[in-house]
Amino acid sequence: MRIALGIEYDGRSFDGWQTQPSGNTVQDKFQEAVYQFTGDRVNAVCAGRTDADVHASSQVVHIDTKCKRQEISWIRGLNSFLPKSVAVRWAKEVPDDFHARFSATSRSYEYWISNEPVRSPLLDGKTGWVFRPLDVNAMQQGANFLLGTHDFTSFRASGCQSKTPVKTVEFVSVKRYGRLICLKIRADAFLYHMVRNVVGSLVYVGTGVREPSWIGELIEAKDRSIAAPTFYPSGLYLTGVGYPERFGLPQYAVSPFGSFVENF
Amino acid sequence: MRIALGIEYDGRSFDGWQTQPSGNTVQDKFQEAVYQFTGDRVNAVCAGRTDADVHASSQVVHIDTKCKRQEISWIRGLNSFLPKSVAVRWAKEVPDDFHARFSATSRSYEYWISNEPVRSPLLDGKTGWVFRPLDVNAMQQGANFLLGTHDFTSFRASGCQSKTPVKTVEFVSVKRYGRLICLKIRADAFLYHMVRNVVGSLVYVGTGVREPSWIGELIEAKDRSIAAPTFYPSGLYLTGVGYPERFGLPQYAVSPFGSFVENF
Repeated sequence: MRIALGIEYDGRSFDGWQTQPSGNTVQDKFQEAVYQFTGDRVNAVCAGRTDADVHASSQVVHIDTKCKRQEISWIRGLNSFLPKSVAVRWAKEVPDDFHARFSATSRSYEYWISNEPVRSPLLDGKTGWVFRPLDVNAMQQGANFLLGTHDFTSFRASGCQSKTPVKTVEFVSVKRYGRLICLKIRADAFLYHMVRNVVGSLVYVGTGVREPSWIGELIEAKDRSIAAPTFYPSGLYLTGVGYPERFGLPQYAVSPFGSFVENF
Repeated sequence: MRIALGIEYDGRSFDGWQTQPSGNTVQDKFQEAVYQFTGDRVNAVCAGRTDADVHASSQVVHIDTKCKRQEISWIRGLNSFLPKSVAVRWAKEVPDDFHARFSATSRSYEYWISNEPVRSPLLDGKTGWVFRPLDVNAMQQGANFLLGTHDFTSFRASGCQSKTPVKTVEFVSVKRYGRLICLKIRADAFLYHMVRNVVGSLVYVGTGVREPSWIGELIEAKDRSIAAPTFYPSGLYLTGVGYPERFGLPQYAVSPFGSFVENF
């Protein structure tokens, strides 16, 4: 039987999603909790692998198990074995052809920037930090060049395992909330480090180092070396994963600071 | 010369504000940073002492020093010696009759509650958690009984050093932001554990265990033993301290999640 689960985690505590010899990854902790709860050694497949220090408010995973439990039991049982920095938010039995990664039709990410002269202890590890004032209108104009289907080679890190650099960005917004700025972006799929690379270049636009149209030029150029460096991991959140309706999974993005829950 | 400073800290890292033999308090770390920056051993006086796990987005302290520095140097210099969990936000020379505690005319606090069935790893240590649905309208109705000048003995913890249990609550609101609920409260001063005791009782109202009018009855009764238990420290933030205009200090409250900065 295949179970899909929505999970939330604080990436600071872990060496990323994917299992490592250290054992200190979200996958390791999650699989260990499943073992303690069910006695099954499972391989948890996730919708989008996250790096160290990258967070998720809505990661989706699937596991195969012979263990039959009510959905509420999966949530409460696993949470009692998980560290404070990870929790199962929902669980649902799914057909065997469901695959957390390959069935996903979209991924939503948010990137949160603290934009203020002084670093914030309360937001440490929760945001990226830019002390120079950012022009969010310019950033939105730049971000608009990402919309649609493009070859995103300029924002692709080496080591990317995607078959193609061509992805479709369905939605992107840049908004200010007091001392914070939030980039929201949804695409069918993302290349390795794509969001952090996009944010790095948009920060150049926001500080006036580059014009908004530079983002369009970067896409045209298909050359990673001319775009800005990869931005900090700490502001990045995987906030939602979209699947075909027939699977009946929760279809919303959860904003990390809890104030905003939006339907896809 | 007297310097007033606005500081922000994440209370999880410390055994509260006040100096302890452990040396692991905000006051200890702050005074150590001042020593490293100036060579002066100072006693930092704060507007409102906070307990372990209680945060501040806008604590105000004063120190006396012979060291003359530009305001921006106080900020940058001290921040380079402070741990990530504390930062100086602003600094200003003030007259000798300024006193961080005794000159303060108001204190603003926020209490943030995660109100959802499952604990949130991203908000761990940043909020209190109530898994039963809360009725914020009932909580606001209950909170309204706090407004004005009252004897708040029912919300006063033992060990309170205030000369009088009579305080004046100038503002109180209870609002929902997605999966979060925020109580904002401003008073001339607060009794020991007063906000956490108020929140404990308002949660009883929010879950329907008590009517909103119960808060009025508690105030009338002047009896700590009949009110609800003290709520978790982790959701509490000192967000602002008000002073007479002549001191020229920043007059605003900083919401911990950065989305809301409000003038007094």
